[in-house]
Amino acid sequence: MEDSCSLDKRRERLAADTFAAGLGVELLEVSEGYSRARLRLSSRHLNFNGAVHGAVIFALADAVFAAASNSHEEICAATHVSIDFLRAPRPEDELVAECRENLLGRKAGHYTMQVKDASGETVALCQGWVYRSSRLHED
Amino acid sequence: MEDSCSLDKRRERLAADTFAAGLGVELLEVSEGYSRARLRLSSRHLNFNGAVHGAVIFALADAVFAAASNSHEEICAATHVSIDFLRAPRPEDELVAECRENLLGRKAGHYTMQVKDASGETVALCQGWVYRSSRLHED
Amino acid sequence: MEDSCSLDKRRERLAADTFAAGLGVELLEVSEGYSRARLRLSSRHLNFNGAVHGAVIFALADAVFAAASNSHEEICAATHVSIDFLRAPRPEDELVAECRENLLGRKAGHYTMQVKDASGETVALCQGWVYRSSRLHED
Amino acid sequence: MEDSCSLDKRRERLAADTFAAGLGVELLEVSEGYSRARLRLSSRHLNFNGAVHGAVIFALADAVFAAASNSHEEICAATHVSIDFLRAPRPEDELVAECRENLLGRKAGHYTMQVKDASGETVALCQGWVYRSSRLHED
Repeated sequence: MEDSCSLDKRRERLAADTFAAGLGVELLEVSEGYSRARLRLSSRHLNFNGAVHGAVIFALADAVFAAASNSHEEICAATHVSIDFLRAPRPEDELVAECRENLLGRKAGHYTMQVKDASGETVALCQGWVYRSSRLHED
Repeated sequence: MEDSCSLDKRRERLAADTFAAGLGVELLEVSEGYSRARLRLSSRHLNFNGAVHGAVIFALADAVFAAASNSHEEICAATHVSIDFLRAPRPEDELVAECRENLLGRKAGHYTMQVKDASGETVALCQGWVYRSSRLHED
Repeated sequence: MEDSCSLDKRRERLAADTFAAGLGVELLEVSEGYSRARLRLSSRHLNFNGAVHGAVIFALADAVFAAASNSHEEICAATHVSIDFLRAPRPEDELVAECRENLLGRKAGHYTMQVKDASGETVALCQGWVYRSSRLHED
Repeated sequence: MEDSCSLDKRRERLAADTFAAGLGVELLEVSEGYSRARLRLSSRHLNFNGAVHGAVIFALADAVFAAASNSHEEICAATHVSIDFLRAPRPEDELVAECRENLLGRKAGHYTMQVKDASGETVALCQGWVYRSSRLHED
């Protein structure tokens, strides 16, 4: 029997992440090496210039990155993330982010995150590496 | 006479950025091509795993990036940011971020952002590009 | 009538790039916003440690990036490239790289490059930005 | 007594890297966590467009990255490199690259590489991660 907690428990815990939840990020799906989330934009997500905050788009991408990389038993921590902003979303848009696993190594994992707007256009494209610790998620 | 607003007005506007301010980011300094900010970490900045949220560290770096790149008259928008997480800050640490301008081209600018903890150790190192629009900051 | 040269001429010129050709890079296909190339690895592509040189894999990815981004009439120059090394190819492998256009803006373009080994496994994943000048390719 | 080879032997081996040496890269200095190299540009380093090849500038940066990260006893392999091209060097310029270690962890290391032209202007700025294997450099 494993000491580590089940994917269901990890899913609950990830969905309860207060920072992402506080921003309005809803985790829609978490499976092994995959995750999907949604964010409805509103005025509190805008920057000093009236555009959607880059850090908000990053936070949404980061939420699916954390969820997909922590969908396995090992606790993972990001070491590198890059984000390319391809199109500015509209201030009241609904964004959906997906994360896919490109590599699951013993000590490292690599992921691609894509953020789309309500019309399916790509808003941002991200690449991330995690360090996979030997500590397991606990109950 | 210029239509564009003064550095003082841009500084005020940047400091009033609701998303960054809502996170607790305090803009300490903005001059041409340079910016510095502070963030006192607390429990609301932690992730599901009890560590400081990568998206919070990104938001702090992004705040000085936005301020330094928008310290000139042209309105700038980020096209690319990369973040390397070098050391995990303590959950109650005080972080300081600085942004320096490496290149100020006609249509693009490049910046390095460094986030340090209270003991002066580097927490994260970021590189960012902005697109420099031909629109000017307005009064 | 345009002053700029045809895609056929640009294709020839790209294929004649002496640095990439000198490395053994063969340009297989160039169409608007897309390119594909091949590289047969041999002992001259190995590093001091007997592994395939990261800079060789980069050069292959860069060749398709240059070809795809210069497939339009405007002369483009890279401003940023990131490369993630996912799997080490075998020293005598045959690598194929493809480049796809994610964004074709007025002054900037964004591209993803994927390098695969002979068995179809991803060796490296790259993201690149170009600056699109107002100079056109000339005959 | 150690099984691993001395820094002097590693230095010799790194300087003999055939790909980098074939390009004209001269390794000027390797110490623990640091390296410096030079490249005299000539016509064979130019791209189809008459400009210095991005992949040549990358190869120079990569040479100091490999040298600095392999200056310790553990064999290191790059997992991620990003390069930002800030200024185009002149076709007959002499480039100097330096690599500095930002983090030396147990399984990973992070490095910054800076490439300058003969007048001291920054041509490119790079960030790189290595995986530090448990294999040691051998005699």
